Amino acid sequence: MLTRVKSAVANFMGGMMAGSSNSEPLGGSDLPLKYPYTRPEFLGLSPDEIECSADHIARPILILKETKRLPWATGYAEVINAGKSHLNEDQACCEVVVVRSRPSDVEPGLTFHYWGLFDGHAGSGAAVVASKLLQHHIIEHLQEVLDVLRNPAQAASLRGAAGAPGSPSHPPPTRFFTEKKIHHESMVMGAIENAFKEMDAQIERDKAVFNISGGCTALCALFLLGKLYVGNAGDSRAIIIQGGEVIPMSTEFTPESERQRLQFLAYMQPHLLGGEFTHLEFPRRVQRKEVGKRMLYRDFTMSGWAYKTIEDDDLKFPLIYGEGKKARVLATIGVTRGLGDHELKVHDSNIYIKPFLSCCPEVKVYPLMQYEHGVDDVLVMGTDGLWDVLSNQDVAEAVTGFLANCGPDDQYRYTMAAQDLVMRARGVLKDRGWRIANERLGSGDDISVYIIPLRYGNLQT
Amino acid sequence: MLTRVKSAVANFMGGMMAGSSNSEPLGGSDLPLKYPYTRPEFLGLSPDEIECSADHIARPILILKETKRLPWATGYAEVINAGKSHLNEDQACCEVVVVRSRPSDVEPGLTFHYWGLFDGHAGSGAAVVASKLLQHHIIEHLQEVLDVLRNPAQAASLRGAAGAPGSPSHPPPTRFFTEKKIHHESMVMGAIENAFKEMDAQIERDKAVFNISGGCTALCALFLLGKLYVGNAGDSRAIIIQGGEVIPMSTEFTPESERQRLQFLAYMQPHLLGGEFTHLEFPRRVQRKEVGKRMLYRDFTMSGWAYKTIEDDDLKFPLIYGEGKKARVLATIGVTRGLGDHELKVHDSNIYIKPFLSCCPEVKVYPLMQYEHGVDDVLVMGTDGLWDVLSNQDVAEAVTGFLANCGPDDQYRYTMAAQDLVMRARGVLKDRGWRIANERLGSGDDISVYIIPLRYGNLQT
Repeated sequence: MLTRVKSAVANFMGGMMAGSSNSEPLGGSDLPLKYPYTRPEFLGLSPDEIECSADHIARPILILKETKRLPWATGYAEVINAGKSHLNEDQACCEVVVVRSRPSDVEPGLTFHYWGLFDGHAGSGAAVVASKLLQHHIIEHLQEVLDVLRNPAQAASLRGAAGAPGSPSHPPPTRFFTEKKIHHESMVMGAIENAFKEMDAQIERDKAVFNISGGCTALCALFLLGKLYVGNAGDSRAIIIQGGEVIPMSTEFTPESERQRLQFLAYMQPHLLGGEFTHLEFPRRVQRKEVGKRMLYRDFTMSGWAYKTIEDDDLKFPLIYGEGKKARVLATIGVTRGLGDHELKVHDSNIYIKPFLSCCPEVKVYPLMQYEHGVDDVLVMGTDGLWDVLSNQDVAEAVTGFLANCGPDDQYRYTMAAQDLVMRARGVLKDRGWRIANERLGSGDDISVYIIPLRYGNLQT
Repeated sequence: MLTRVKSAVANFMGGMMAGSSNSEPLGGSDLPLKYPYTRPEFLGLSPDEIECSADHIARPILILKETKRLPWATGYAEVINAGKSHLNEDQACCEVVVVRSRPSDVEPGLTFHYWGLFDGHAGSGAAVVASKLLQHHIIEHLQEVLDVLRNPAQAASLRGAAGAPGSPSHPPPTRFFTEKKIHHESMVMGAIENAFKEMDAQIERDKAVFNISGGCTALCALFLLGKLYVGNAGDSRAIIIQGGEVIPMSTEFTPESERQRLQFLAYMQPHLLGGEFTHLEFPRRVQRKEVGKRMLYRDFTMSGWAYKTIEDDDLKFPLIYGEGKKARVLATIGVTRGLGDHELKVHDSNIYIKPFLSCCPEVKVYPLMQYEHGVDDVLVMGTDGLWDVLSNQDVAEAVTGFLANCGPDDQYRYTMAAQDLVMRARGVLKDRGWRIANERLGSGDDISVYIIPLRYGNLQT
């Protein structure tokens, strides 16, 4: 009975949000899905449970079942949006992975821990695919540098092609030109960067035969050879909380943070604007009667503002418009890095958004093994639903406060802390909507959170 | 007698360095100079003194004469290079400037303090012209926002065109779209940014009728309405020393720091590489026999490195090559922002360097009036000759240590501290060249240093 009611609500929500589904490419729906819609595999939910989780009214917070356990006792919690989209478009993946150069490899493989978080938009397809496959692209790219990574002696002398797999085994002749020393760390970063690119390219290829709707942000963390790598393309965020202090491990990529990159691209390739947009920024829309008058503007070279005389061209819609969470590129999208979106166009036009989006992550490295970590030192990864309403400081205080009240050996402490965070960001349903502390509005977005204890990294061999 | 010897040495040096003069555009030398070569006006040197200062053997350190005094008791010192170029290609300018909207303006003008530092290359022309004119371009751009800057009430309500000079005086109709609030600070930043662009454009225009050789970096500081603005295009550097602690006020723009911008540009406009260069980076030059093998590389999207299979195209010379001070763009230039260089080409080719150079400064703001400053709190501005051999920390310790030994009211204390810094960076001539502390090599480059006491900003009304 409850299920039927929820189903009706879900249909209503689906209908209400039809606009966004309709914006998906025509014909896409005739193709089969690459993977059926689901929730993170590690939650181990039944189809019925998945359906129940999509209740936009009750918004139940999902956590790991007691029978499930993630590597490092990682905590995870999630909640669906308040009706913004039919499905929860966030996805997550957590695995311990072994890299071998080939299946028959007799040498010990290289093991890494992997956590991925994906926030979909305009459909759940890209997020589902990326949550299933990104780690495999990372594996592939790590395979290429595997010999170097697992053999420190060989790596110490690595210069250019010397010592590279496939290069001659005898030492190269003495050379009189300089060579850059490349560190292990840089090769792991390169592997993650290229894995994102490959993942994006695969989505594009697969779209010819599968229905892969929309796009998604991607935030991933890897623990490998004593170091933690965080790769981010989008507006999710990762922070380390260490002794109560915050260490940011990612930056968000939005129309505002990437304004100059986007304006530069549009300036260099004006045809991408389809004659409908201007790459200049103005404090507001320019009106026809203002032609010939002076108004403040910003070009791609500027951080400050200056006056210009308004021309006809300035009446075009600005490439970047709106402030904060409402800022949009080409009046369409509010996040400027991620995977997918290959067929996304400006409404009612032939202007593609994709050339302005980057699939390249920023990778930050934290030398975990160089520090001792207490039981309350954690990496928090969350989709923007969390960070829209809670600051880094809010999260650090909440997590530190919560963990202080849990037994240090309680294996559910990180899951409970994640649940607490999601609860603080979602809030409780009052007569006027979701409310959090101080009567502020809670997040109506999908919210997904990992809390990863760092001391397990210190215990790893 | 001494003069004749020095002159002979200078000619010898000139001959030795003929290569760099020859690289100036043909025909340029037929045109008259826009300004004759000189040293900073505030030094008040006679032609004889200017000649004496160009002694590459003795390398005398020039400071302000006792009869001269710069605003705020600013300290300044400079020294010529050790033979790298015939003339000292650094230039400097320091002025107190009043901005009025028009000469007949009855309202009080807006006064600002201005310090400029320019480091020329491939000739002294651009540096001389920029040292004479950059402040006038800043004045022009500040004039455009003058009404807003000197009228806080008008500015508080400034939104877009409203309140802008030239816009209707009656308040604009209520609008239902959002507008960005633009702060004063952003308009000063915009004025500085556009002044650099105009200065560069003027050099290009003036080259049609004047001989303006080479290019130059530009670093300037403005004190205006209680705030200190530092604009930087090049590899000079400014730091604030405040209670002995360092606050960086600029970042350097070099082939390494701007690698991704340059690679991105070359990727988007490959014709700029003239078929001779590749935008990819390798740890060393690729050899023909390596085609088909794998080598590490970096593309514009990457911070890390990955393997690729070498193709014929990879045999081209890399857009960015070399490390540290030896890094070059297009095998030609080691600094990626500045003014001039419009006709600079890759040796023996038709490939222009200028499209890869940016004349846009990064502007940083320091809210000087918000802090109290002691007599030893200063802004240090120096050309790369200083920073090549002394770290921020070295400079902070030297300046703080030196000033502690001067009377707090000694009006020469900042000049003496600047002299001390230049001495520490140049070193003393021993049998094997210029040596500084710990037998390290001193800087053989031109060195110019300002030491600007900040407490005068607190005293300004």
